[in-house]
Amino acid sequence: MIPSLADVEAAARRIKPYAVRTPLVESPVLSAITGGRVFLKLETLQRTGSFKFRGACNAMAQLSPQQLQAGVVAFSSGNHAQGVAAAAALFGAPALIVMPRDVPPPKLAGTRALGAEVVFYDRQKDDREAIAAQLCAERGATLIKPFDQGEVIAGQGTVGLEIAEDAARFGVRLDTVLVPCSGGGLASGTVLGLNGTATVRTVEPENFDGMKRSLEAGRRAAAPGGVLSIADALMAPMPGEIVFAIARERLGPGLTVSDEALRRAVAYAANTLKLVVEPGGAAALAALLDGAVQGQSVAVVLSGANA
Amino acid sequence: MIPSLADVEAAARRIKPYAVRTPLVESPVLSAITGGRVFLKLETLQRTGSFKFRGACNAMAQLSPQQLQAGVVAFSSGNHAQGVAAAAALFGAPALIVMPRDVPPPKLAGTRALGAEVVFYDRQKDDREAIAAQLCAERGATLIKPFDQGEVIAGQGTVGLEIAEDAARFGVRLDTVLVPCSGGGLASGTVLGLNGTATVRTVEPENFDGMKRSLEAGRRAAAPGGVLSIADALMAPMPGEIVFAIARERLGPGLTVSDEALRRAVAYAANTLKLVVEPGGAAALAALLDGAVQGQSVAVVLSGANA
Repeated sequence: MIPSLADVEAAARRIKPYAVRTPLVESPVLSAITGGRVFLKLETLQRTGSFKFRGACNAMAQLSPQQLQAGVVAFSSGNHAQGVAAAAALFGAPALIVMPRDVPPPKLAGTRALGAEVVFYDRQKDDREAIAAQLCAERGATLIKPFDQGEVIAGQGTVGLEIAEDAARFGVRLDTVLVPCSGGGLASGTVLGLNGTATVRTVEPENFDGMKRSLEAGRRAAAPGGVLSIADALMAPMPGEIVFAIARERLGPGLTVSDEALRRAVAYAANTLKLVVEPGGAAALAALLDGAVQGQSVAVVLSGANA
Repeated sequence: MIPSLADVEAAARRIKPYAVRTPLVESPVLSAITGGRVFLKLETLQRTGSFKFRGACNAMAQLSPQQLQAGVVAFSSGNHAQGVAAAAALFGAPALIVMPRDVPPPKLAGTRALGAEVVFYDRQKDDREAIAAQLCAERGATLIKPFDQGEVIAGQGTVGLEIAEDAARFGVRLDTVLVPCSGGGLASGTVLGLNGTATVRTVEPENFDGMKRSLEAGRRAAAPGGVLSIADALMAPMPGEIVFAIARERLGPGLTVSDEALRRAVAYAANTLKLVVEPGGAAALAALLDGAVQGQSVAVVLSGANA
């Protein structure tokens, strides 16, 4: 149930024919600013603009022909929806996505363009997990969770595997890998994939820092929430159970960033790095620009790009 | 005087400590559109946002301490200026850039931010080459030409060397490499670096298609010009002499794109590929989106990003 490095390596073999091998590239300007060496993992160039495709693809690659025919169901406000829709299209499976009625229009359009059917729910009144469970029962379909599922975590972990491979190719020993964090699927997967070669630190928006609080408390704890963040992709209140079983012992201390820092990072990415990144996808960059890490060899994960 | 593959390989060793090893990354969406396999060479992520840093760096790495102290001079409306300024700063050489008074403000600001001194000239009245020659004579400085110079061509050729290396790593045999073209330094260098492993085709804006016309005529021929292009980086009227000595026998047929196609390519890069590219830097992508190449394995060079 709790995935291991071997599961991440198996995921890498499964998704290889489908996923983009995204590059790790050095940024001299960020290296100069931080007095270290900064590498960017360009996961914005992944299919659908985010790492979410990896986990969805790894989960789907393990379904039987009968399961694929019955289809997959996901609940998501955006990037996971598109990741599942794209993977389902490649595997020939119908995809049904449960989305909030106030989903950002580009994410809705992107999901539909990939051929998925969308069912709306009301954030205030409805329980999206219950809706998804009911749809699965009705259709015999398989649920692909956004983060707290072994196959999904193992798939996201290929990000860490690739960072480790590319850092070795550059002859660099990384100190820290900064990752944007919501439910923690990417962070927990990446820590498995890196296999102790670097410290993984999560970056969350203020008021949505469930992982940081959980790491400090030593048990799953919810963020206060109650407001909105411009990082619509990073609004999970709390890390998942499987996620936290991995994260608890292995992640470095969590970091948070303000909406203002996220805005600056998005602008910096476009103007200076020449990369389009959405606010949530720029969280790790925002922490770096805030001065969270100095004088180190750092990899910064950029993902997604569906603002 | 005319550089060879060995000169490109020597350039690669010289610039390695300074230049970004830019990635080659597959684009599934472009592969699907063209019915082939499309790889993007992300030279927009090079220092200063374009390949121009490579040639400038290779030229400067061969100057003596005395020559570096006396400084370097370049004439350029933009990307070459920033490439020379950035390389000069790394080598501790003063840089003097001769720029037209109507230079795009971001390119002027970028050049000054890199520590270069800027001298303006009037496009209608002044001869920028004469101004640069006079400045060199006065200061004992060294001229770094924008394209028609062996060291510069060899430096740009490292783009081709890297594409060949990365394609081999992906296990892909490339058919075609599409490159934006103005004076032809990148195209002629890339054809050397690729060493016959793929056909290089240049892409120029309509009315600035000096390379295409020259290849058709078998001798250097000027484009009509007389209008403006939104690709301010690609307005050289004619390929250089050294450039054409290389290009003549080895380039595939030239391609042209309209301003409208360049605009579409810039928008497509931002919205779909999640990459910031200036109009001139998107010329090769514009040709691909125009349907110039179908059913092939193609590398598309994206450079620069200073719009």
